[in-house]
Amino acid sequence: MSGSALFPASRLEDAAERVRTGGLDALLLTPGPDLRYVTGYDAKQLERLTCLVIPARGEPVLVVPRLELAAAQASPASGLGLEMIAWEETEDPYALIARRLGPVGVAGLADQMWALMVLRLRDAMPGARQVLASSALRDLRMRKSPAEVGALREAGAAIDRVHARVPGWLKAGRTEREVGTLIAEAILAEGHTQVDFVIVGSGSNAASPHHEVSDRVLRPGDAVVVDIGGMMPSGYRSDCTRTYAIGEPPAGFLAYYQVLKDAQEAAYRAVRPGVRAEAIDAAAREPITRAGYGAAFIHRTGHGIGLESHEDPYIVAGNAEPLSPGMAFSIEPGIYPGPNGARIEDIVVCTDEGGERLNNAARDLILADG
Amino acid sequence: MSGSALFPASRLEDAAERVRTGGLDALLLTPGPDLRYVTGYDAKQLERLTCLVIPARGEPVLVVPRLELAAAQASPASGLGLEMIAWEETEDPYALIARRLGPVGVAGLADQMWALMVLRLRDAMPGARQVLASSALRDLRMRKSPAEVGALREAGAAIDRVHARVPGWLKAGRTEREVGTLIAEAILAEGHTQVDFVIVGSGSNAASPHHEVSDRVLRPGDAVVVDIGGMMPSGYRSDCTRTYAIGEPPAGFLAYYQVLKDAQEAAYRAVRPGVRAEAIDAAAREPITRAGYGAAFIHRTGHGIGLESHEDPYIVAGNAEPLSPGMAFSIEPGIYPGPNGARIEDIVVCTDEGGERLNNAARDLILADG
Repeated sequence: MSGSALFPASRLEDAAERVRTGGLDALLLTPGPDLRYVTGYDAKQLERLTCLVIPARGEPVLVVPRLELAAAQASPASGLGLEMIAWEETEDPYALIARRLGPVGVAGLADQMWALMVLRLRDAMPGARQVLASSALRDLRMRKSPAEVGALREAGAAIDRVHARVPGWLKAGRTEREVGTLIAEAILAEGHTQVDFVIVGSGSNAASPHHEVSDRVLRPGDAVVVDIGGMMPSGYRSDCTRTYAIGEPPAGFLAYYQVLKDAQEAAYRAVRPGVRAEAIDAAAREPITRAGYGAAFIHRTGHGIGLESHEDPYIVAGNAEPLSPGMAFSIEPGIYPGPNGARIEDIVVCTDEGGERLNNAARDLILADG
Repeated sequence: MSGSALFPASRLEDAAERVRTGGLDALLLTPGPDLRYVTGYDAKQLERLTCLVIPARGEPVLVVPRLELAAAQASPASGLGLEMIAWEETEDPYALIARRLGPVGVAGLADQMWALMVLRLRDAMPGARQVLASSALRDLRMRKSPAEVGALREAGAAIDRVHARVPGWLKAGRTEREVGTLIAEAILAEGHTQVDFVIVGSGSNAASPHHEVSDRVLRPGDAVVVDIGGMMPSGYRSDCTRTYAIGEPPAGFLAYYQVLKDAQEAAYRAVRPGVRAEAIDAAAREPITRAGYGAAFIHRTGHGIGLESHEDPYIVAGNAEPLSPGMAFSIEPGIYPGPNGARIEDIVVCTDEGGERLNNAARDLILADG
């Protein structure tokens, strides 16, 4: 067994332990973040079944289409001392897994497994109750190892370098789409292997949190929300928002921008082990509400991040999950009163004493010359 | 109602009709190809539920997170006269759908719906038997409209233009990865919005059908399998394989390359309405087996293509589906005897009289100077 610091070989045993303590009989992981977390294997999601089978007792096995065997063997999964079974084009891999497992009472399925596979596994194992793999893997995946925090720190530094270049691109006369294309190229140039999202919301589009880009032309006086992220070669993700203004900011904007900045800071300062996720949301919401902008903060405060852009823990009212060291999540309050809006977002990791920000670009309103 | 030639507003009614005739009570489509096919809406797959609900009787509704409402309204779905319901961050959208539908006996789920949503819908509607949406939509999606064939034709022409540039990049001394990067850039430059896959299999890697790229350095005498595809702005996909040789091809290679070319041609000529999918596979396999290379043709002959790179109909032994006009699929026999291999792939559409190839680059072995 070998593995790496990021994907240690011990993960497979850790997962098996969670299968047992979680009352599952087997965990079934198709390509996606759960499989990558446990094995390091960044398998392709195809209609042909690839599935890591981790029984509560007995040896795990990776079931792969014959055509993917070479790729699986060339992946980090090959260092785990894991049996691989290749199935042929005319075989039924679902029946193969059912035979291999024998009677199963409860089966945990990768959260992103396709319905195509969920329902075929249900039919192949009619006695098994299907639950989500996150019921077993959630606690493991939420608490990042030092190597994972290192990977997120690298991702944060990479996206900070992109933000550092953004003011030079925010020119009156350019469209959001043109700026977005430059940003997408920079996300790759600064070390990501994939662009996950590029939001350039200018003027009234700044008031729409999940706006992406449009053909709107930037104008002097615009506020511009730039929310960007990508995937690093490690598989770990970046996500950071800064708000810019082209020349003189719009009337009234500076007042609520300062409220937002204070709220983001307050939420960050509230991070420490034992504090509930919902308390971080409340810490961001309180100063915004107090200043009269509560109705203009229309989304949760944040989401976990790791091998997925959005994962547990969610920083939202109703989530009583206590923070613990290694948890990584966004703190991204926004105020969208119209006709413009603003958001500030950092990725923060809970440490033994408090929180560490992984994004360190200035949080002041950034004035672009335009 | 409006819609477009590619995504006509009538699709929604066609889908509802299939829900009724297929014995379903409702179709539940989360982001992915099924939702895009029915509405044209290229929604993001997120942990927050977006779901088109098409009941057998009554009006369809698009349930979206509040944050995605603006995007949904800006999408082609807004032209369909479709009610949209936005749910708030602290609401339960699964319960909302269950209340809206009332008692459901059989629910069809998008084939690529995440297990996360499958199991929550199961829990919200415990009386419903879950089946795949393809049980209702498969026949519709398999038979491409003239507009869809037009979109696939454009995709085919775009990837043909990339292949036309490949010989200039196959230089001895370059790595597969370097060539792959040039190809990926060209896939975008020639009109795709996304690179789906880039396989550059040289030398012994040509014998591994799903090899992607490696740091292997190209050498004079290499055979190189180049299998590439991407997504066009329409959402429709390209996929085309040609085999190249750098300078003089390896010993024995020309003999089986000719067999392969004849097999690909024979399978193409077998395409016409009423012929079974498995008969196309057999038509490709027969000349290869007769020439003694049967054991070296280790995969099915092809797969359907449309909004997905791989979809129904699959051209494989055991698939008795009769072809009908509008069906689009790859014909891609390969011979991998080692120490090298070859594959030739075109997308073919079944017409009223026979087949139309959507890839038209020469199928002869293409000699690169190196």
